[in-house]
Amino acid sequence: MSQLFEDFKKYLHEVNVYDHVTTLLYWDMRTDTPKLGQQDHIDALTEFSTKSFKMSTSPKLGEMLDALSKPEEYNALDETYQFIVHRMKLDFDRNKRIPADFYEAYVREQAESGNAWEAAKNASDFSIFAPHLKKMVEMTKEMTGYTDPGIETYDALLNQFEEGMDSATIDRLFDDLKKELIPLVDKITAKPKPYVPALHSYADPDSQKKIQKLLLDYIGFNWDAGAVGETEHPFTLNFSSKDVRVTNHYYDTEPLFALFSSIHEGGHAIFEQNVNPAYDHTVAGSCRYMGIHESQSRFYENILGRNKNFWIPIYDQLKELLPQLKDVSLDEFYREINCVQNSMIRTDADEVTYCFHIILRYEMEKTIFRENVPVEDLPALWNQKMQEYLKITPQNDAEGILQDMHWSDGSFGYFPSYLLGSIYDGMYLEVLEKDLGSVDTLLADGKIGEITKWLNEKIHRYGSTRTPEEMIDAVCHKPVSAEPLIRYFKKKYTEVYDL
Amino acid sequence: MSQLFEDFKKYLHEVNVYDHVTTLLYWDMRTDTPKLGQQDHIDALTEFSTKSFKMSTSPKLGEMLDALSKPEEYNALDETYQFIVHRMKLDFDRNKRIPADFYEAYVREQAESGNAWEAAKNASDFSIFAPHLKKMVEMTKEMTGYTDPGIETYDALLNQFEEGMDSATIDRLFDDLKKELIPLVDKITAKPKPYVPALHSYADPDSQKKIQKLLLDYIGFNWDAGAVGETEHPFTLNFSSKDVRVTNHYYDTEPLFALFSSIHEGGHAIFEQNVNPAYDHTVAGSCRYMGIHESQSRFYENILGRNKNFWIPIYDQLKELLPQLKDVSLDEFYREINCVQNSMIRTDADEVTYCFHIILRYEMEKTIFRENVPVEDLPALWNQKMQEYLKITPQNDAEGILQDMHWSDGSFGYFPSYLLGSIYDGMYLEVLEKDLGSVDTLLADGKIGEITKWLNEKIHRYGSTRTPEEMIDAVCHKPVSAEPLIRYFKKKYTEVYDL
Repeated sequence: MSQLFEDFKKYLHEVNVYDHVTTLLYWDMRTDTPKLGQQDHIDALTEFSTKSFKMSTSPKLGEMLDALSKPEEYNALDETYQFIVHRMKLDFDRNKRIPADFYEAYVREQAESGNAWEAAKNASDFSIFAPHLKKMVEMTKEMTGYTDPGIETYDALLNQFEEGMDSATIDRLFDDLKKELIPLVDKITAKPKPYVPALHSYADPDSQKKIQKLLLDYIGFNWDAGAVGETEHPFTLNFSSKDVRVTNHYYDTEPLFALFSSIHEGGHAIFEQNVNPAYDHTVAGSCRYMGIHESQSRFYENILGRNKNFWIPIYDQLKELLPQLKDVSLDEFYREINCVQNSMIRTDADEVTYCFHIILRYEMEKTIFRENVPVEDLPALWNQKMQEYLKITPQNDAEGILQDMHWSDGSFGYFPSYLLGSIYDGMYLEVLEKDLGSVDTLLADGKIGEITKWLNEKIHRYGSTRTPEEMIDAVCHKPVSAEPLIRYFKKKYTEVYDL
Repeated sequence: MSQLFEDFKKYLHEVNVYDHVTTLLYWDMRTDTPKLGQQDHIDALTEFSTKSFKMSTSPKLGEMLDALSKPEEYNALDETYQFIVHRMKLDFDRNKRIPADFYEAYVREQAESGNAWEAAKNASDFSIFAPHLKKMVEMTKEMTGYTDPGIETYDALLNQFEEGMDSATIDRLFDDLKKELIPLVDKITAKPKPYVPALHSYADPDSQKKIQKLLLDYIGFNWDAGAVGETEHPFTLNFSSKDVRVTNHYYDTEPLFALFSSIHEGGHAIFEQNVNPAYDHTVAGSCRYMGIHESQSRFYENILGRNKNFWIPIYDQLKELLPQLKDVSLDEFYREINCVQNSMIRTDADEVTYCFHIILRYEMEKTIFRENVPVEDLPALWNQKMQEYLKITPQNDAEGILQDMHWSDGSFGYFPSYLLGSIYDGMYLEVLEKDLGSVDTLLADGKIGEITKWLNEKIHRYGSTRTPEEMIDAVCHKPVSAEPLIRYFKKKYTEVYDL
């Protein structure tokens, strides 16, 4: 090992320790930190993020990366470190132009804006959040001006969350979906709606936690490398493949929420737990592509979790933990968890109308960045689009524009990832069934482990080392298309609703 | 404000941020970190502790403290900062002699030894822990050699946890206790033992958590400045007066454990939450004197929590959460929670025989540091002393010498603090009743808030700004004595056991 390479690894370790505690501060702020303790955590978070940022953009790192990129050094590196050096050099060149002062202010505003959003949502008062949203939009524009000069802001944001993605591609995919799904949903909603009152009645939050444990066990979550927490909104976070945390929220009378969140976040977590551990603590570890990431959470949640056969091996156990299911047959349960209806809240939506929730947000974001609509006008625009796509109008901002936290920390351009994930899932499903046979049969036979193993092998272990395009190409051997997802929806719902 | 003073405050802030994340890493390792994630946390903890240590012992800090100690600067400081500068200078002079390498190795060994102790306890196998214990004893000796040259190791340790305390004083106090308590316990154990089977039967851990919430509310825990966690062993930890965390452990069939741990840790927490917030993030904030600290947890747990009148206002609520109490009268409950018996585990012990558990550990520690007994001989010595003081012999090391974690992180000399705390409590109680009238009446009338207010005013708000001796003198106007505690025991148990 050259002295240069040793110095480089030592440097990476130092940056990583800062990132480690930044991750921990974030986790703790959401899970345990009491109200009066938040400010000190924000201060520490800002300080360590800034330290990490400064080290990640320092001339010293730039020199090391330049030197390691020279053939005589580069060729001596193993494949993993070749990827790391290459990837870090790309990131370095993007980030070095961000002024450290601006970055520090940005991190602080992210945290404060997150708190303002929470307060606004609790009070159902958009005006509390509006000035912070305005600030985040401005800071985001300034940020991409540094990182992606010459690229239109929203395209830069899309590319940031799903490398290689742009609005031209997304327009095409989403247009294909709209064309097919609008009539499909019309046909479905003309049919009688399933409704099992038992699934909208009181369920002890402690029992819901036990169900989460059951489901995480079932899908293959590794408890030696994972933990769960309770937060206002479910999320997954990881320190490395050895420590991956999921959270959940338990609504007293809507047990299905925590149940499907368990599977969704569990999907994210199983992905991270199965990344090649040699990539831990480097840019190769973890998966930085949000569409690819969501494809895994949504594969578990929808393709598997909303399949009747998924429940066959565990339905009796579920009934024990959720006594109101006593007289609910698996068929009734299955129809209920696939009840397609126009609804207010994205995270409560069925997998079909979910697409409209995303398309709405995607269009809102394009408007925000391309038409410079004043933030004050956004709630009305939101409501108008809800009427257009979902034929309902929110009664207040909490169930309207304030429902998601993404914009509060500047994650503009993230939303399309969810739907890209589902689009990839349609494609993966067809390949998986070609390789392993019918998913229905595998699930009914209790062989969900074989599906997880296939996903580990084909997708998870690569972490960030394959871009979304490379991943789709390697797994599916064709370019991204919404057709398989549309086929999946049509086949499934024709059956469920007897269309 | 002078430039010097500004630089000093900035420097303190930097050290504090490191301490902040060190505290958080410790919290997380005990509450959420999965098995495979522990090592990265240990690495980060070691790194930040070492950084903080280096800053706390740097020549730069030494120069600032020297300069601030000069009359022209010192006299310009407010009283709080005069204390801080004075106190930091004492600490600096003690700590600057510790080599940074040694400190880093010590912190790492603490964490590793803690894990070894946990494994040893789970396997009930002292030999897993023995080499780590040996190392911790050696490192502790080396440490006090640096911090307290010329002072005998064990006296240095006692002084470290309870400033001003030495083994001559403790010998006197503990001898007084032994003289009176041995015959008292003999008399009590000759009487029939109360036993309420319902209190040793299954209690849903989730209900136990609800009881904890009830009790913390009742005694005045501030949820805006606090949180709870679940750990193998209960503890309290604080970032500042604004973020104080307690943990608990819920045994399926021994609900009294979590119940009294709630009150005990709640007492520690109420102390920290009520320290003058102007002291936050400095050596004035938090209470560094463990005897004084334990006096507050034990005041709530024993003086209040084991008083019948404490339960009068909440016994009905307790019954709802603990259905097995349905047919248990308050009198029966009261006798059960004051059941005096020779038992194996310190943390399960009643308040009287608890004294023997501490005396045993104190004598063990003196032996370890003054007679250099090989660690291999310690389990036998432990068992022999158990027989001598508590008339029982542990069946295995898990219920014997491995029961407490204190030695695993080098906290030798901590144990006497618990009993010093009770000794102080006896003294406080007499003053409090002089000031506020009968504690029985206050509690029965639901006026526990007045007691908490008195403790806030007399003790809590001072944080670390009064040494134990100063505190006892200011509150009780007399030197420390075990007589009040002995009087309290004799009066109470003569009544409970009709002696």
